[in-house]
Formats: sequence, C-alpha cells, structure tokens
Amino acid sequence: MTSKQLDSIVIFGDSITQGGWEPGGFAQKLAYVYARRLDVVNRGLSGYNTEWGLPVFEQIVAKTSEQPHVPTMRLLTIWFGANDACLQQSPQYVSLDRFKANLTRMVTMLRDEKSEWYHPPERTKILFISPPPIDADARAADLASRNPPLAPDRTWDNTKAYADAVKEVGKELSVPVADAWTAIWDAAGHKAENLKQFLPDGLHLNAASYSLVYDLILEAIAQNWPELHYSKLPFVFAPWNEVEWEGDPRPSLQARHN
Amino acid sequence: MTSKQLDSIVIFGDSITQGGWEPGGFAQKLAYVYARRLDVVNRGLSGYNTEWGLPVFEQIVAKTSEQPHVPTMRLLTIWFGANDACLQQSPQYVSLDRFKANLTRMVTMLRDEKSEWYHPPERTKILFISPPPIDADARAADLASRNPPLAPDRTWDNTKAYADAVKEVGKELSVPVADAWTAIWDAAGHKAENLKQFLPDGLHLNAASYSLVYDLILEAIAQNWPELHYSKLPFVFAPWNEVEWEGDPRPSLQARHN
Repeated sequence: MTSKQLDSIVIFGDSITQGGWEPGGFAQKLAYVYARRLDVVNRGLSGYNTEWGLPVFEQIVAKTSEQPHVPTMRLLTIWFGANDACLQQSPQYVSLDRFKANLTRMVTMLRDEKSEWYHPPERTKILFISPPPIDADARAADLASRNPPLAPDRTWDNTKAYADAVKEVGKELSVPVADAWTAIWDAAGHKAENLKQFLPDGLHLNAASYSLVYDLILEAIAQNWPELHYSKLPFVFAPWNEVEWEGDPRPSLQARHN
Repeated sequence: MTSKQLDSIVIFGDSITQGGWEPGGFAQKLAYVYARRLDVVNRGLSGYNTEWGLPVFEQIVAKTSEQPHVPTMRLLTIWFGANDACLQQSPQYVSLDRFKANLTRMVTMLRDEKSEWYHPPERTKILFISPPPIDADARAADLASRNPPLAPDRTWDNTKAYADAVKEVGKELSVPVADAWTAIWDAAGHKAENLKQFLPDGLHLNAASYSLVYDLILEAIAQNWPELHYSKLPFVFAPWNEVEWEGDPRPSLQARHN
C-alpha cells in the first residue's frame, strides 16, 4: 500500500518514544490532530541509546535515491538520552561526548548536501527533545523489585547533564529543542518527590507528562514552522461537505498535497 | 523517509475509523501492540460513504507497479456503512445494493489478478467491520441541538440492514467480518436505551465500544491469520538486550523482515 499522498512526522528515540502510542501519549495525540494531514510514524526503540540508534537511523531514513518513492518526512523528532545517561556499569551507557557526537551525526546525515541521506531543510524539519528528569529513588525501588534485583542504574545529576547536552548540541546546530526535562521538572515544583506524578516508575512518562511534551512540540512547531501546525494543513482528501455529490465526485476526491 | 522495513495495517473507513486515534480508540490500541512490528496507517474519512471512499481507495492502495517501493499492506480493515445508511434526504445516502457493490469492488480491486491494484491474498489480508447500531433518539437529539437544527438522518432498522449487508458480502467473498454491530448491541443487552454507554452521540464510538471492536479484530486475526497476531511477529529491529554490545553492534541491528 502506498501512503505517498500523506507526508509524515517521524518520531525517533527510545522507550519513551515507543510508549508514545499509549492513550494520552505524544504519538497518539499527534496522530489524532494530524489525522488526514500527516501520518505519525513511530520509530521508538525501547532500551536503545544513540550508539545503537544510529545504525537503525541509517536504515529508516530514506536515501536520496529512495526519496522519490516514499512519503516526505516533514518533521523528525529525535528524543534520546534516558538510556545513554545510564551509569557506566550498564551496557546502555554512552559517554556524554559520544552522545553529543551521535546526535550531531544524526543531524549532519540529513543536513550535509553530500550525505546519501540528505534531506533539504526546507522540506524536512528536525526537533530535538531533551530526556526527562529521573526520579532516582523510584527507579531504584523498581529495579530492586525485579527478580533478580537490579542495582540503581541512573542518577538525577547524570540525566540532567545529558538533557543539558541536548540543548547544547541543538544550539550549535540550530536545531530547536522541546525541553521535556525542564517542563517536567518545573511541573514537579523542582521537588524530586513530586516527580512520581509524571514518572510513575521514575523513568517513563504517563499521560500527564506526555501532555506537557506534546504541548512543547506544538509550541516548537508554531514558533519555528507555523506552516506545519495541524491547523494550517488542509486535509489531503476533501472534507465530506466539499465533495461534489451532484455531478461526478471524482475530481473533488483527488489527493491535494499539503 | 522510508518505513519500508515495517509493513503496515491499513484501516480504511469513515469517521469511526478516523476517530480510531482517540485514546482507547482501535487505531491507538493496534498501534500500541504492533509497535516495532507493523505500522498502523489510518485512512478514515469522516462523513464518507463507500461511493466517495472508492475513488480515494484507488489512490491509497498501491498499484502493482508501485508495490516494490512501498511497505506491504499485510492487513486492510474496511469499515463503512454508518453514512451509507443515512436516509435518502442526505447526500451521504447510498442504496443498499450500491453499498454492497462498492464493498465488492474494493475487494475485487485487490483480489482480481488482472487488477492494476492486485494484492496477492497470501500477502494482504482483508477484514470487514460492520457498522455499529445507531441510537436514533440520541442522534436525533444531537442533530436537533445544532444551529440550524437538523432533522433525524438515520434509523436503527436501516443501519441494521447495512450491517447485515456487510456480513452477506463478506460471506459471498470469503472476507472475514468483525461484527461490531452485534458486539455493541449484545453489550447493550439489546436495549436501545443502553446504547449511550457505547455511542455517546448515538453514532460515534467511545473507548468502551472501540475496545469491543479491537477485541473482535484481534480475534479475527487469531482465527484466520494467526501469523499476523502481534504476539507472533518479532520486532523488526532487535530488542535492546539482543543487541551485540561487546563487538560491532551493526550486524545485530539490521532490520529483520517479519
């Protein structure tokens, strides 16, 4: 089947992106408002860090030779750091420098005109999302409850450093950042004990925190690429009350590129 | 961007399909369980009947010449009738015979080996979904509350006739049917006054009724095409604990067709 008539929003990241399909998740909320305008393609990979994400990214992003055949990626969100920020004991750990280099590589893959994955910036927008804060106590309790029990694997300070790194790289590369870390930390009143309202297991988001991130994404779209806001994109196939029902309806039912 | 690594489930129909992206909607629930296995592509068109759906169907379904370039449609759900069943005063009305002919045409487009839209049955499965019962009183009240007020446009008997027609055509063409009409009517204890628990405005589904339909779809998959059940489909990109992190991770990160 081809969905070439509809372009796409691709959301790429770890379990926090994969979980975006939960009720109230940011993928579900985006898919709902962008229905008939842009398809939401979820490329969230639970447990992945940027080191493992890169080889997948090279496969899911169309090369210039493939681009004529596939839907245009109008917006790409890149949301990593929650796993890269694990302590060094974990195979998921990626050093801060390597994390920044991997994020930079993902962007240059699309932005370098000589790249085989080149996507013209006027056609494909890129948005970073910073990893959420960690509720280290809740996460440690969750890990301790596993069988066999697992040692704590993340700290608040460390995850903050990776969130700050996303903002640094975004600034260097002029990639807007939806700052999930700050939005959730602010909503928690800068109190770790309040994080459980937004991160039930200390690490993953719920409808309340996904809603904050969804709002950040729509604000970033409205500020940077207002033409991509769902309210500005017409339906690709006509609203039913615009269908020509007295004569031949076919001309009024042709896909209209938005 | 290409999502060729992931095949798709395409859901095609009217507003009841378009609304599947609501929290608890059948699209959201399918996307959640099929994450990393199959993409859910929502081609629901609010207000459409089969007469207007057909010319759109011809555009969204890949022709044989396009199929090598696009993700394979592994499952297609066709869910129409709620609008076709309008009374004749409405431009949305489609006669029962024409409704059956249009559903038949959608199937033969894919199944006729001489069709330019031919999809081999071993590769693409088709599932009909019957339209839900109508709560005519609630619908009439909703229409009367509009500005300007609108006259009643649907009856319980008429919608039942279109639901029965879906089952007839399914039987004729050997296309399985997820019988939403019966599931919702049974859940309402065969009492129109109980339908409001499942059809808040008399016509559209809520999380309770979408959940019934989601269960019917998974049952139909398990019975007819067990290999397509999400529990039988491996992740296209490896679970993180299967990633080779000591040596070169790339070989373990290649897309695996499922």
